[in-house]
Amino acid sequence: MALITAEHQSFGGRVAYCRHDSKATGTRMRFSIFLPPGEGPHPYVIWLSGLTCTEDNFTAKAGAFRKASRLGLAVVVPDTSPRGKAVADDPEYDLGQGAGFWLDATRAPWAEAFQMDTYVTRDLIEKVETEFPLKGGRRGIFGHSMGGHGALTLALRRPELFASVSAFAPIVSPSRTPWGQKALTAYIGRDLGAWRAHDAAALIEDGAARGRFDQILVDQGEADPFLEEQLRPRLLAEACAGAGQRLDLRMRPGYDHSYFFIATFVADHLAFHAERIR
Amino acid sequence: MALITAEHQSFGGRVAYCRHDSKATGTRMRFSIFLPPGEGPHPYVIWLSGLTCTEDNFTAKAGAFRKASRLGLAVVVPDTSPRGKAVADDPEYDLGQGAGFWLDATRAPWAEAFQMDTYVTRDLIEKVETEFPLKGGRRGIFGHSMGGHGALTLALRRPELFASVSAFAPIVSPSRTPWGQKALTAYIGRDLGAWRAHDAAALIEDGAARGRFDQILVDQGEADPFLEEQLRPRLLAEACAGAGQRLDLRMRPGYDHSYFFIATFVADHLAFHAERIR
Repeated sequence: MALITAEHQSFGGRVAYCRHDSKATGTRMRFSIFLPPGEGPHPYVIWLSGLTCTEDNFTAKAGAFRKASRLGLAVVVPDTSPRGKAVADDPEYDLGQGAGFWLDATRAPWAEAFQMDTYVTRDLIEKVETEFPLKGGRRGIFGHSMGGHGALTLALRRPELFASVSAFAPIVSPSRTPWGQKALTAYIGRDLGAWRAHDAAALIEDGAARGRFDQILVDQGEADPFLEEQLRPRLLAEACAGAGQRLDLRMRPGYDHSYFFIATFVADHLAFHAERIR
Repeated sequence: MALITAEHQSFGGRVAYCRHDSKATGTRMRFSIFLPPGEGPHPYVIWLSGLTCTEDNFTAKAGAFRKASRLGLAVVVPDTSPRGKAVADDPEYDLGQGAGFWLDATRAPWAEAFQMDTYVTRDLIEKVETEFPLKGGRRGIFGHSMGGHGALTLALRRPELFASVSAFAPIVSPSRTPWGQKALTAYIGRDLGAWRAHDAAALIEDGAARGRFDQILVDQGEADPFLEEQLRPRLLAEACAGAGQRLDLRMRPGYDHSYFFIATFVADHLAFHAERIR
């Protein structure tokens, strides 16, 4: 099976759409990658997307590659879940395919394929670092909404893998917000202790940051329709304040939850990561 | 009926998705518009898209608004045809809905609604200049593929409306290339004389440029799969050379026909227009 299914030159570098078999999910997974000009090895960031997204949303819509090219930064964008007829699903947009929540499910029917934590932190990293000229060791991770939750929790759970973490409009405390409660209940069961290991605010309260990240960067639109019910960035700010973790929370008047918001500020995030990965 | 159906803040300005009734097409038409920060009136460019596109492709995927915001330039993006169950269509992607070819059809069943020349040059311009703080009089026009054909032919047919024209991978001579021949036959009949009025290379050969544009800018990817059969930029270069029209034809090694190509060079085109509209 060919790894690369489509390839496009972009800002002197290239975008490749890829597929590979993952042991973690037991399925064929898809991701896209932007490689900047030059031979590499390139430092890189992983972008985790939000509900309903695939490996294409950020790549097509964030307008990130002009800046990534200038910074010499590669960007890896995995799909948000395992896919296919044989994979469990739910009719709603916020559970199942397209909504893997970047964690390892332990409950049926999800546990069989929904292993997105292990997929990202083991299979994806191994695959991209084997197949492309990437600089391993110190990676950046960022994401949006459900993917902001993913970036924060994976970085806090596995700080040895990541040098920097940032997020756009993240679900900062899924234990205390409806999308998160629904997903945690389905994927790992109603165990509030276990939930803390998948909740960025709780992880920081429980000491997971441990001085590993000099700073966490979060951009949040003030006109985001999910701000008060699903995202609640103040819960992250409170946890960081309590734990002595520096947080740069940038509240952006007028901006919503869309890729128009992400596109406006993505260059700042890429620069933030480039500075820390090097 | 509300003009604006959705709105997003973007790079300090805003993107609005709009609909309005057009006399030219007799249908409800859609367009999107980017407005830069500030009160205006803003100079603006019209972007014409290629086959299968809507008012969303450029707006979501071109990554154009960072530069447009910096230049203080608005961008208006119409849909590529009338739409709806009552509107004629064709099962193929290169004729009918999504493939209006930016001309006024004269043949049944297309003539009733496919009046995209009059739609753009009269109804759309009138609507956007009435409803938004835009600077009329000297506009820019650019586009991609079928929309590159549209930008070139509308600018050459109505140079009094446009101060600047550029294109990405345009169909430069639809009379001599398959997509164009199919569309011209269907929309205006097999009249090779009439075809010259909708063929950028022929218009220039026939003197339509008349010193109205100091320069025409065209970017073309050398890895574009449609280059030799459908686009043939050398036909435009020959026509311009023969007519004394300055053409800046930038052949780009490695780039294809996608929005990754457009995104890479769109800032250059916006700067080209901004300089000439002012």
